[in-house]
Amino acid sequence: MKFLSQTFMIRTEKGPQFIDITERVEDAARESGVSNGFAVVFSRHTTAAIRINENEPALLGDMEKMLEQIAPSCAEYKHNEFAHAFSNNGERPNGHSHCQHLLLGASEAVPLVEGRLVVGQYQRIFLIELDHGRDREVVIQLVGE
Amino acid sequence: MKFLSQTFMIRTEKGPQFIDITERVEDAARESGVSNGFAVVFSRHTTAAIRINENEPALLGDMEKMLEQIAPSCAEYKHNEFAHAFSNNGERPNGHSHCQHLLLGASEAVPLVEGRLVVGQYQRIFLIELDHGRDREVVIQLVGE
Amino acid sequence: MKFLSQTFMIRTEKGPQFIDITERVEDAARESGVSNGFAVVFSRHTTAAIRINENEPALLGDMEKMLEQIAPSCAEYKHNEFAHAFSNNGERPNGHSHCQHLLLGASEAVPLVEGRLVVGQYQRIFLIELDHGRDREVVIQLVGE
Repeated sequence: MKFLSQTFMIRTEKGPQFIDITERVEDAARESGVSNGFAVVFSRHTTAAIRINENEPALLGDMEKMLEQIAPSCAEYKHNEFAHAFSNNGERPNGHSHCQHLLLGASEAVPLVEGRLVVGQYQRIFLIELDHGRDREVVIQLVGE
Repeated sequence: MKFLSQTFMIRTEKGPQFIDITERVEDAARESGVSNGFAVVFSRHTTAAIRINENEPALLGDMEKMLEQIAPSCAEYKHNEFAHAFSNNGERPNGHSHCQHLLLGASEAVPLVEGRLVVGQYQRIFLIELDHGRDREVVIQLVGE
Repeated sequence: MKFLSQTFMIRTEKGPQFIDITERVEDAARESGVSNGFAVVFSRHTTAAIRINENEPALLGDMEKMLEQIAPSCAEYKHNEFAHAFSNNGERPNGHSHCQHLLLGASEAVPLVEGRLVVGQYQRIFLIELDHGRDREVVIQLVGE
């Protein structure tokens, strides 16, 4: 019975950006020696999400476009006034990033069977940067035997 | 190796409403004595969701506005006719609440390392009331060693 | 302490379609003999999601309508040109299916207490077909004691 967690940093370049972290999760699973169980993949951020989809470049553009339509970066957000008025840390307006994150989510749980993630043929695990490029932390928690 | 579940009631006041339950989850984690593992936070409802985001009042207003734009409370839902016609339990029209819930989700899994939730600096766990104020049940399942 | 996974096939008929798989998950939980723990329900696809909501036929229609409004099947997706140009496997244009899937998600975790899923009165677990009808695989991973 094992509980192993691994935290790793990812430097994103821009937002939105889909970063395929499937190999990182597979590596962590292999290193853990967990044969049966599952992996919780967790983003430690409120403007960078974890989701599973297909890694096809044209599709990633379509999904970015949809997120922009649902919560446009140029719309008015009260959070942007708040951030502008009260922070001195150079934070850029990111109300849209938070709103988009709310619709995606911070975690996915992926079963592990016989030492392998049971992801389907087209499933890839993404960290999705919704704000501007920066350092991000992802936690992979492996649980199993 | 432990499996501990805790169910607690929350009285919401209105919908939409973001209720920060992070401390409740932290308390449950501490009381459980689980050092490494994770917490599954689960809403037992179809019109009240679990999501993680920043607890900044202006932002919560922005997110409520986005949810209202995606599935407006004043739009037409066939569910509302159904509920009106077939229920005598005083249920108010809540098609929009169900639709919004579909986009958010009922659970998040948060890793626990060295007895602490690994939430990031701005991450807070919310029960999000999408219908009208009432009693709600949240289950916290702690798993670990 | 047990880790048991079960994979089952579901033949969907059309998209969108909400298929109630709650009984399958309950059966898997009962067969596993797990008393306290939880079930991870996972779709092995990028155009078929797992979500929890109420199984009320009029409501399912409302949710299908909302998904179509957010990412219309008739809108332009670059993925559709890609799929058309590069695949010979008869894949139909499904950019909207991937976009809708991004907003829903591939997994839910449901706590198990005293041998029963702690789902609320109206909660039902759905596999949601977002593409056209076909065979789909769902993995149920049971973890507990």
